[in-house]
Amino acid sequence: MRRLGKLLRKRSFRAVEGVLVVEGAELLAQAFEAGATIEAVYVAPEGGHDVGVRALVDRLVTAGVRAFDLAPGVLGKVAGTASPQPVLAVVGFAPVAIDELLAPVSRREAGGTVLVLVDVRDPGNAGTIIRVADASGARAVVWCDGTVDPTNPKAVRASAGSLFHLPVVSGGDAREAVSALGRSGYVTVGAVVRGGTDYASFDWVRPVALVVGNEANGLDQEVTAELDTTVSVPMAGRAESLNVSVAAGVLCFEAARQRREGGWRTAVGSGGSSSSTISGMEGRDARPAGREPG
Amino acid sequence: MRRLGKLLRKRSFRAVEGVLVVEGAELLAQAFEAGATIEAVYVAPEGGHDVGVRALVDRLVTAGVRAFDLAPGVLGKVAGTASPQPVLAVVGFAPVAIDELLAPVSRREAGGTVLVLVDVRDPGNAGTIIRVADASGARAVVWCDGTVDPTNPKAVRASAGSLFHLPVVSGGDAREAVSALGRSGYVTVGAVVRGGTDYASFDWVRPVALVVGNEANGLDQEVTAELDTTVSVPMAGRAESLNVSVAAGVLCFEAARQRREGGWRTAVGSGGSSSSTISGMEGRDARPAGREPG
Repeated sequence: MRRLGKLLRKRSFRAVEGVLVVEGAELLAQAFEAGATIEAVYVAPEGGHDVGVRALVDRLVTAGVRAFDLAPGVLGKVAGTASPQPVLAVVGFAPVAIDELLAPVSRREAGGTVLVLVDVRDPGNAGTIIRVADASGARAVVWCDGTVDPTNPKAVRASAGSLFHLPVVSGGDAREAVSALGRSGYVTVGAVVRGGTDYASFDWVRPVALVVGNEANGLDQEVTAELDTTVSVPMAGRAESLNVSVAAGVLCFEAARQRREGGWRTAVGSGGSSSSTISGMEGRDARPAGREPG
Repeated sequence: MRRLGKLLRKRSFRAVEGVLVVEGAELLAQAFEAGATIEAVYVAPEGGHDVGVRALVDRLVTAGVRAFDLAPGVLGKVAGTASPQPVLAVVGFAPVAIDELLAPVSRREAGGTVLVLVDVRDPGNAGTIIRVADASGARAVVWCDGTVDPTNPKAVRASAGSLFHLPVVSGGDAREAVSALGRSGYVTVGAVVRGGTDYASFDWVRPVALVVGNEANGLDQEVTAELDTTVSVPMAGRAESLNVSVAAGVLCFEAARQRREGGWRTAVGSGGSSSSTISGMEGRDARPAGREPG
């Protein structure tokens, strides 16, 4: 029990043990279905009375997981909340090393965007971004120094199981990670509030490493200096910026949209070859062999 | 002081008084710049020592706002948090009636999407969606019964000032609101996790009322029955759904993208006329006559 409390509260302890704590039956079922190693499951009395929780725990026990029934009130004390989830589990989790993303381009081209987080501080945002990455078909999420720990209980909750669905890569120093990705063939692109290429006229159908920064301050100078280019989401209203997880969502799903439609749209205009059978048709989808159109 | 505490905690009291509480200098400056009526500002001793806060309070006082200096510790007690913002203000806020959105189509066509919230329960999500609506150029946000109060302090914070930038409409009963919007010429579209039209092949360049539902359960049967159609964001990974504010962001910025490019893109594919000069070119941009190119 003391270990469980320490795992919930101490990042370094989770890192040393190579585990995180999953709270609640739904999240735990997702972790299990995603093939995560469930080390042990702890069930509060309320959980024992819940048909869904009992069925899940039975499945886990059948699969060889150790289950512990807890006395009333114990889980609340351990979790440090008044209304804890009726079931917690210690689940194996170890970030992947960045070298695994630096494989030859031929293999990489099949995959989606790599999302790089730099100084993202809010665990809710960080977890939501992992969920966005998963849902949009991103290849991996790279976690650089300064970003809140992905095993933070709030981040685990916000990721809604996606933490177990795609590689979460330990990126270390942000500048070095961006530089390494660039050297190995990714177009490195920073998301900036303004001044970047319109994200909708950017070609996402190639190996792209999308770098998102701090909620309040964006990307710092040192990281920006390593980037190939930047993109922005044009804003129409008087809002000064977007929430970082919403911005990641808008960018990653534009990438997914372009991939789904088999190309990226450029406004070729009057200069392009055109055989308009539809009135006013002007644009083209072009996919160049090389680099940067925007 | 007692009134301030009550305003922070009681929705009904805020509604009766027609105000909300804005916390922090940045948000307060945004409210002021957006033309909101600042009724009174309360400054903790830490605020009095902050150059930025003092400059803002001076501007407000010059504009005729009453300012009150508080004794140490008072604000923490009122706000009910250990580290409150050093400045709070009572700011006028009254939701607009839905009738104002039901004006003749000719006027409405100039504007963007109307976002309708049904049973959105998390104040952080609700505030973030207002921010999304503002930044994407939406026309208004309609707040239906069952959705968390927009004047909730966490929603106010998450909206990052956008609450003062676009009309927040009191929608009342969700079914009636959707039905009224439909009757008055809006295409009413529900965001659903799966089974809807691909949002990227949906025409957003027309009066659209986009209806988003509860975080866990989506839209209920009664509301769905009133809708013209539904849209979904295709998901590539194993994520089961998107966070509701991210989904709203993806949809609203697709609407903004289509409006910016002067039309809605159809994937004509192999059936369309094609003069591929660039390898891999597959898609087409159909842009109706008479509009602004991207």
